[in-house]
Amino acid sequence: MAAHMTPEEFRRYGHEMVDWIARYWENLENLPVTPDVRPGEVAARLPEQAPETGEDFTAVLADLDRVITPGMAHWQHPAFFGYFPANTSGPSVLGDLVSAGLGVQGMLWSTGPAATEVETVVLDWLADLLDLPKRFRSTSSGGGVIQDSASSAALVATLAALHRAGGGAWRTEGVRREYTVYTSTQAHSSIEKAARIAGIGDRNVRLVEVDEAYAMRPDALRAALDADRAEGRIPALVVATIGTTSTTAVDPLPEIGEICREYGVWLHIDAAYAGAAAVCPELRWSHAGLEYADSYCFDPHKWLLTGFDCDAFWVADRAELVQALTVLPEYLRNAATESGEVIDYRDWQVPLGRRFRALKLWFVLRWYGAEGLREHIRSGVATAQRFAEWVRADERFEIAAPHPFSLVCFRLRDSNASDDSGASDDSDAANDSDAANEELLRRVNATGQAFLTHTRVGGRYVLRLAVGAPSTQERHAAGAWKLIQAAADDLDAG
Amino acid sequence: MAAHMTPEEFRRYGHEMVDWIARYWENLENLPVTPDVRPGEVAARLPEQAPETGEDFTAVLADLDRVITPGMAHWQHPAFFGYFPANTSGPSVLGDLVSAGLGVQGMLWSTGPAATEVETVVLDWLADLLDLPKRFRSTSSGGGVIQDSASSAALVATLAALHRAGGGAWRTEGVRREYTVYTSTQAHSSIEKAARIAGIGDRNVRLVEVDEAYAMRPDALRAALDADRAEGRIPALVVATIGTTSTTAVDPLPEIGEICREYGVWLHIDAAYAGAAAVCPELRWSHAGLEYADSYCFDPHKWLLTGFDCDAFWVADRAELVQALTVLPEYLRNAATESGEVIDYRDWQVPLGRRFRALKLWFVLRWYGAEGLREHIRSGVATAQRFAEWVRADERFEIAAPHPFSLVCFRLRDSNASDDSGASDDSDAANDSDAANEELLRRVNATGQAFLTHTRVGGRYVLRLAVGAPSTQERHAAGAWKLIQAAADDLDAG
Repeated sequence: MAAHMTPEEFRRYGHEMVDWIARYWENLENLPVTPDVRPGEVAARLPEQAPETGEDFTAVLADLDRVITPGMAHWQHPAFFGYFPANTSGPSVLGDLVSAGLGVQGMLWSTGPAATEVETVVLDWLADLLDLPKRFRSTSSGGGVIQDSASSAALVATLAALHRAGGGAWRTEGVRREYTVYTSTQAHSSIEKAARIAGIGDRNVRLVEVDEAYAMRPDALRAALDADRAEGRIPALVVATIGTTSTTAVDPLPEIGEICREYGVWLHIDAAYAGAAAVCPELRWSHAGLEYADSYCFDPHKWLLTGFDCDAFWVADRAELVQALTVLPEYLRNAATESGEVIDYRDWQVPLGRRFRALKLWFVLRWYGAEGLREHIRSGVATAQRFAEWVRADERFEIAAPHPFSLVCFRLRDSNASDDSGASDDSDAANDSDAANEELLRRVNATGQAFLTHTRVGGRYVLRLAVGAPSTQERHAAGAWKLIQAAADDLDAG
Repeated sequence: MAAHMTPEEFRRYGHEMVDWIARYWENLENLPVTPDVRPGEVAARLPEQAPETGEDFTAVLADLDRVITPGMAHWQHPAFFGYFPANTSGPSVLGDLVSAGLGVQGMLWSTGPAATEVETVVLDWLADLLDLPKRFRSTSSGGGVIQDSASSAALVATLAALHRAGGGAWRTEGVRREYTVYTSTQAHSSIEKAARIAGIGDRNVRLVEVDEAYAMRPDALRAALDADRAEGRIPALVVATIGTTSTTAVDPLPEIGEICREYGVWLHIDAAYAGAAAVCPELRWSHAGLEYADSYCFDPHKWLLTGFDCDAFWVADRAELVQALTVLPEYLRNAATESGEVIDYRDWQVPLGRRFRALKLWFVLRWYGAEGLREHIRSGVATAQRFAEWVRADERFEIAAPHPFSLVCFRLRDSNASDDSGASDDSDAANDSDAANEELLRRVNATGQAFLTHTRVGGRYVLRLAVGAPSTQERHAAGAWKLIQAAADDLDAG
């Protein structure tokens, strides 16, 4: 027998590890948000080979401080404002811990009845909390499932859409080159990636134009659908976004939904980041028109206090999804499946195997309650709105896009925006200004005291400050703003 | 501010949770392996809605015993012999715990340098431990990455194969209906599912005939390739298996590899279960011919003491994989990516986001050392071989397939196997015997003292006993064998 860790050893090291995490969280604010390491530097701290004999666990623990922490971008740091937040929380970590300890593989209902049923129930709870349309409930025609990410949710939605568009022939015949997919120029790259994976080809993905608020233009969508139909193509899927990655724009779902209904096209809604906002009634305007959707997802692992991976994905008609994805070999046959009374989540996703990820979500919902979730969202929104006020009050800066949630897009104004010296000079000025914004971002991040990322919208380089880590308070956003102003001062002087 | 769990509370509840898991493991042998629950029974124990205000954590802890444990199939139970094992271990659970606590999202090198580099190094370690071909190393042209499962590995390999088969046109043009995929009739269903997801269509997947040992017949593969080429199809991918799901058959890689080279087809090797065996030199015969492979995967989360999800996937040429999958939107651009000096694992997988899964594998390799891993594999193989001896010694039973690893396929013989009364009666006898084996399995599993699953090979119903849980000892297999014999006695008597 190999020297397995005994339950007694697990207790001892487990307590030490819990304490290490608690200390990490307590000390997080004192660490640089992002590390100062060069490529290869972490790898160089590791031996070239695995040990021949087992090591003492204290050496492993020591390496967390020696190798891991200094090589980390600290996503849970209160001054991590990059990308979108990647929340976790105490109850989430503990739910994941139980899941790891149980080591259950819930591919089928029968291989983990509790894993399956807790997931179904908790996703119904979440549908209630967001006030999603009734047909997304498992008690109706639909149901929810946890995917690893919104990317995988988009892929699964794409496959169900192809199954429908092909009248069932897609499974056996494969993709037809006539299928087309529609999303906005501001949609997440995962939509394009999902289409590519599904064999649709990048050139059959239509990136529909947006309006001045970066939301999809329904008239442009209709025009694209008409043009493709006229050329004999088969529109299979429209993906609309609630809260785009660059600027958190909200596509007009009621208009888009009407068009999808008219053209008989599957409508998937990607609300990866902003879906969490729907726990607050005052932010549910962003979900108006969701009744048109065939599928919808958002990531509790972004802004709803649940650790990665936890994308919540719902379909309005679970039968369509299962028909698209099911393959049933003999070795997976079992009485429960054949009874037709159970959900086998393997047919709702790409992989066969699955962890008991619902535990962490269940723990989070119970620890915080609906009230606690709403407070978390409101706190992020309030801090972001305060930040936007500070930006507006400094005439060197401008807000670059509407900011209804907890992301603010902003930039240094073009230095000679008031100079009316012609198109060519405007373009030079734009380039200079983009470079200045890029340099400002570099300087702020180099301090290690805050971390922001960037995007480009309307062709211009824009800074993004995304609030949402559980530990972030207004003072952290204020600290970031001071760093930004100081960097702008230096650029002015320099 | 929402009432976040404080570090102090996390310490307290974290210790309680660690203790709960330790107790669960200590008590596991006394629990029924699979639960006696009906569909809906677990769900009925949960409230209909999430709580409005946060609950006390002691209520959550109590529900583990009230709701979860009684609704579990206990995959870590020493008498769980179903499917393939789904190992976990103390060091794996603790590695996952640290990963959850850090909450890092390692989609890019820059968003988690340590997460990326530890993964690269540990997969190189693992390649050494299995003695994989040099070109799979990150220090050569290839490299390893953790996927959630062998299903996703098969999908990613399929996409890279299509990219190659299309000469780069697949990305933009999409799948062509001429592409074909080859695997054996005994391959895992995930190969067919991957092809379907990639838009290839079930009818373009060729299930190649196997020999009497259930291994792919190279002549049948060649014939299928020739037939397709003659009809203008484009063979894109061959998937060979080391250790098929039904019986752990090993496809003849040297012959298959030569054919793939001759026809210029991507060769992916699915060693999901049996790959772990290659840590033992005496079992490496199963990997002969691996030098022909373009990609290879196995699941440490099956038989190598690492909790789900942890599929280790390697490619011989990482550039081909990245070219197939990359999409680079502005908001993900960063200096490290542009330097070309780093790996961004997002381009090696379907999802964008990723957890720090390498931690648990790192912990496992360090805790056990190469020696401990080998002992674990050898212990499972030895117990399975002993079990096979017992089966052979009971004339009512027969071994149904070769059993080189830790899975034994067996069955009650046809009751009149010695009776020479003609084809029609043989067929009736076969049906009776299949029904008897099915009933025997039902009775054994109903005891709750062991759990086995079944398959069909050669058209016959066969029982599978898979050894491999870390806590399984010979006495547990002996206990299962006693239950099986007792059930056979009852069937004889009845």
